[in-house]
Amino acid sequence: MSQKLNTPKGTRDFSSIELKKRNYLLKVLRDTFESFNFEEIQTPSFENLSLLSDKYGDEEDSLIFKILSSGEKVKKADLNSLNDGKLSKFANSISDKALRYDLTVPLSRYVQQNLNIITLPFKRFQTQLVWRADRPQKGRYREFLQCDVDIIGEKNYLNEVECIKVYDYVFDSLGLPRLVLRINNREILEGITKIMNLNSLSEISSILDKSDKIGINGVEDELVKKGISAESIDKLMFFLNIEGSNENKIDIVRKEFNTKNISSNSIDLIEKIINTCNKFKLNNIEIKFDLSLARGLGYYTGTIVEISSPKDFNIGSIGGGGRYDDLVQKNNPKLSGFGISFGFDRIFLILEELNLFPNILDSSKSFLFLNFGTDKIFNFIDSVNQLRKDGIICEIYPDNISIKKQLDYANKKGIDFVVIIGEEELKEDIFKVKDMSKGEESIFTRIDSLTKKIKEII
Amino acid sequence: MSQKLNTPKGTRDFSSIELKKRNYLLKVLRDTFESFNFEEIQTPSFENLSLLSDKYGDEEDSLIFKILSSGEKVKKADLNSLNDGKLSKFANSISDKALRYDLTVPLSRYVQQNLNIITLPFKRFQTQLVWRADRPQKGRYREFLQCDVDIIGEKNYLNEVECIKVYDYVFDSLGLPRLVLRINNREILEGITKIMNLNSLSEISSILDKSDKIGINGVEDELVKKGISAESIDKLMFFLNIEGSNENKIDIVRKEFNTKNISSNSIDLIEKIINTCNKFKLNNIEIKFDLSLARGLGYYTGTIVEISSPKDFNIGSIGGGGRYDDLVQKNNPKLSGFGISFGFDRIFLILEELNLFPNILDSSKSFLFLNFGTDKIFNFIDSVNQLRKDGIICEIYPDNISIKKQLDYANKKGIDFVVIIGEEELKEDIFKVKDMSKGEESIFTRIDSLTKKIKEII
Repeated sequence: MSQKLNTPKGTRDFSSIELKKRNYLLKVLRDTFESFNFEEIQTPSFENLSLLSDKYGDEEDSLIFKILSSGEKVKKADLNSLNDGKLSKFANSISDKALRYDLTVPLSRYVQQNLNIITLPFKRFQTQLVWRADRPQKGRYREFLQCDVDIIGEKNYLNEVECIKVYDYVFDSLGLPRLVLRINNREILEGITKIMNLNSLSEISSILDKSDKIGINGVEDELVKKGISAESIDKLMFFLNIEGSNENKIDIVRKEFNTKNISSNSIDLIEKIINTCNKFKLNNIEIKFDLSLARGLGYYTGTIVEISSPKDFNIGSIGGGGRYDDLVQKNNPKLSGFGISFGFDRIFLILEELNLFPNILDSSKSFLFLNFGTDKIFNFIDSVNQLRKDGIICEIYPDNISIKKQLDYANKKGIDFVVIIGEEELKEDIFKVKDMSKGEESIFTRIDSLTKKIKEII
Repeated sequence: MSQKLNTPKGTRDFSSIELKKRNYLLKVLRDTFESFNFEEIQTPSFENLSLLSDKYGDEEDSLIFKILSSGEKVKKADLNSLNDGKLSKFANSISDKALRYDLTVPLSRYVQQNLNIITLPFKRFQTQLVWRADRPQKGRYREFLQCDVDIIGEKNYLNEVECIKVYDYVFDSLGLPRLVLRINNREILEGITKIMNLNSLSEISSILDKSDKIGINGVEDELVKKGISAESIDKLMFFLNIEGSNENKIDIVRKEFNTKNISSNSIDLIEKIINTCNKFKLNNIEIKFDLSLARGLGYYTGTIVEISSPKDFNIGSIGGGGRYDDLVQKNNPKLSGFGISFGFDRIFLILEELNLFPNILDSSKSFLFLNFGTDKIFNFIDSVNQLRKDGIICEIYPDNISIKKQLDYANKKGIDFVVIIGEEELKEDIFKVKDMSKGEESIFTRIDSLTKKIKEII
C-alpha cells in the first residue's frame, strides 16, 4: 500500500516544543479576554451547509470545505448539474455539512438559538480552528486557529473601543512593536459609492480590499480594467488621496458628504471612536483612518478595522474585525454585533522571528528513574507514585538496557535529573541523583527519604 | 432564506459554564500525562484519505467523514461506480481527505514522518477532537474529544503497566468509584480461534466485541446465526465460561494452550502485567482478565484493555487501548506501540451525574463599572487599565442606560462586585462598591485609590 506520509496541503503537525510556544500565546490571549470579562463558548467544527452559504461572499464561499454525505445519501448526486458544469450545485447535492470558515457565523447561530438564556450584551470569546481551502503561503494555512472576541447587543461605539483595547493589551503583553490599526466604516464606503454613481459597493469592494497589496495606483488600474467610468474613478481617487492626520481626513470627508447631502453619521462615529481610544490610552496601537480599507467578508455593515503586520513582514493582516448589524437577526437593533479576530498563526510567526517568546516556557523539572530490572523498581515505586501525585514529572525507563543508553535517552529528551537505584545502591541503602545539565552526581543516604530529597532539589 | 438553527446531528455547542467543567477535566488529564512525562503533539483535523483507509475495519471505515474535493476536482466523479452502487468507490473519486477518526493512526504517521528527530521510546499525549458518523445516543457524539497517551518503541510490558497507572491516577484524582479494567490479548484470541478450527479471528471478533452488551449467551446465538459450527462454538464457550480469579483463569488457559501446543507467551505476559500492577499499587482500578474482550479496531495485535463505565451507567466503555505492532512500520520491533484513550465526554457525563465536579471551578472575582456616560469613565479608566493588566476581571457597561438595568445585567451575569462612580461620586471624590452576593454597598474616599482598594477587596 503506497501511503502518503505527509500532512494534507496547508496543514501542520505540532511538536511539544512548538506547542509550548503556542500555549504561551494562547494563554496571553485567553487571559486578556477573561480580564475584560468575555465568556468562552465553543461550537462544532462543522455546521449545516445552509448556515454557511451566502454569508461571506462568492469568492469566500468557494473556499469552504464541504463534507461528503455518508452512505446511501450520495445517491442524491445531481448529475445534471455536474454535466452542466454547475459544480457548486453538484457539490451541494451530496453534502449538507461544511467545516467552520470563521467563528462569527457560528456565533450568530449560537445567539439566535440561545436567545432565551443568554444575557445581552453578550460578550463572548472563542479560540477554535477554522478551515479555508485557500492557496497556502507563508503565514496562510488551510487549518488555522482563530481567536475572536465579539459583543452582541445594542449598537454602541464603546464596544468598538473596548475591542480595540483588547488588541492593545494583547500586543502590548506580547512585546510587539507599535502596530497600526486601520479603521473605516462600510457606510462611508457606501457614501463614496453613491458619489461615484455606482449601484453597489460590491462593484469596488473586492478591488479596494487589495489596496494594501497593490497600492492606490493598482486599485485605479483594476477599476479601469473592470470598466468603471473615468469620472467615477476620479471621485474615488479624490477620497483615497486625502492625506494628513485623522482629524484632517475626517474634516474633508465630512465636508464632501455634507455638500452632497449624504449622512455623515458614520464619520462622526469614527471620530468618537478615535477620540475615546485616545482618552482610554493605547500603548501599542496607532489608529489610522483609512478610506481604502474595505474588508472582504460580506456580512459587515458598519465600522471595520484591520491590524497590519509590522513593517518588513509581508504576511498581510494579523487581525481584523467589524460591525455586523444583520447577521444575528435582520433589522433587530438589539442584536447588532461587533467583533475582532486575532490571526494566531501569523502573530506566532512574528513572535518567532522577532525572538519575543520568553526564554523559559516551562520551569518544571523532570526526573528519569533508571531501570535496573522491574524487581528493583518495586523499591522506589511508592516514592514515584507520591511525587507524580504532587505534580512532579517522573518517568521510569521502560527497559532494562545499558545505563549508557538510558542516560543517552535522558539527554536527548532534556530530562533535568536522573535517579539511580541499582543493586549496589539498594545494598548500601543509598541513591544517586545526577544533574544532567551540570553533569554532577550527588549521593544521598536512606532510600526511604527519596520523596523528601527530590522535593528539596526542585 | 430558511435556515436550520441547530448544530448538525450528533454535535454540540458548549456554554462558558460547561467549558469551565470541561477545562477542569481536561486539566486533570493533561496534568497527569505531564507528570508521567508524556509530551504533547497535535496533528491536523483531516488526513489524506489514503492514510485512514483500511486501518480500522470495514464497519469503522464506513463511519469516516470524507471531505469533498473542491473546485474542478469534483469532475473526477466516478459515475460508473455510482451507477453500480459502489458508493464508497464513488465517494473516494471525489474526496482525498477525511476527518480524523482516532488519534492513533495520525500518531503512526507522525512517528514515521519524524523518525529522524524523535527520541525512542516516544511517549506522547494528544487531546484533540475526533469525528465518527455514528448513530448518536447518550454519551456518543459525532464530534468528541479524545485524550490519548501512547508509547512507541521496543515492546515492553512496563509500558502497559505505566498506561494502566495513568488510568488509575486520572480516575483517582477525579474521585470516581472503583472501576474495572478488562484485559485480554489478541494473541490469546488467535489461539482460541485456532482451537476453534477457524481461519481468522475476524470471523468472531466483531461478535465477541459485543459481549458486554449481549452477554455470553448473546454471543453464542449470533455465532450460530453466522453459521459457525456447534463444535467450534463449544470450544469458545469453554473459554468464555472459565470463572474465578485472574490466577485461576490464567492457569486454565495456559494448560489448555499447552495441551494444544499453542504458545502461552501472551498468557505469561498478562500474568506479568497484572502482577506488576499489583506491586505498583492501583488505588482505583481492579484488573480483570476477560477472554470475551476483543476491541473493535483492526490494528491491535497484542494486549488490549478496556475500562467499563461504573455500574448503573449504560454508556459503554469510558476508555480503552491496546498494543499495535505493525501500525507504525510493519515488522519493525523497535516501533511497536501501546496506548490508551480516555472517552472525555462519557467521563464528563459520569462526573456530572455523580456530582463530582468541584463546587468552585473559578475563584476569580469580577467587577462591573457602571456607565454614567463616557466622559465619566475617563476619570477611572487608568485604574481599569491597571487592574486588567494585573489580571483582575473588569468590565465597563457599554451603554449609559438606567442603573437598574445595569445592575440587572450584573446579576444575570454573576458579576461579584459593581463599582459606582457617577456625577455625585465624582463631585465628592468617593466611589461605591456593591457586593452583589451580599447586596451590601461600601463607600470609599479618594477615587485615585481605586486600584489599591479593589486589590484589597479580592
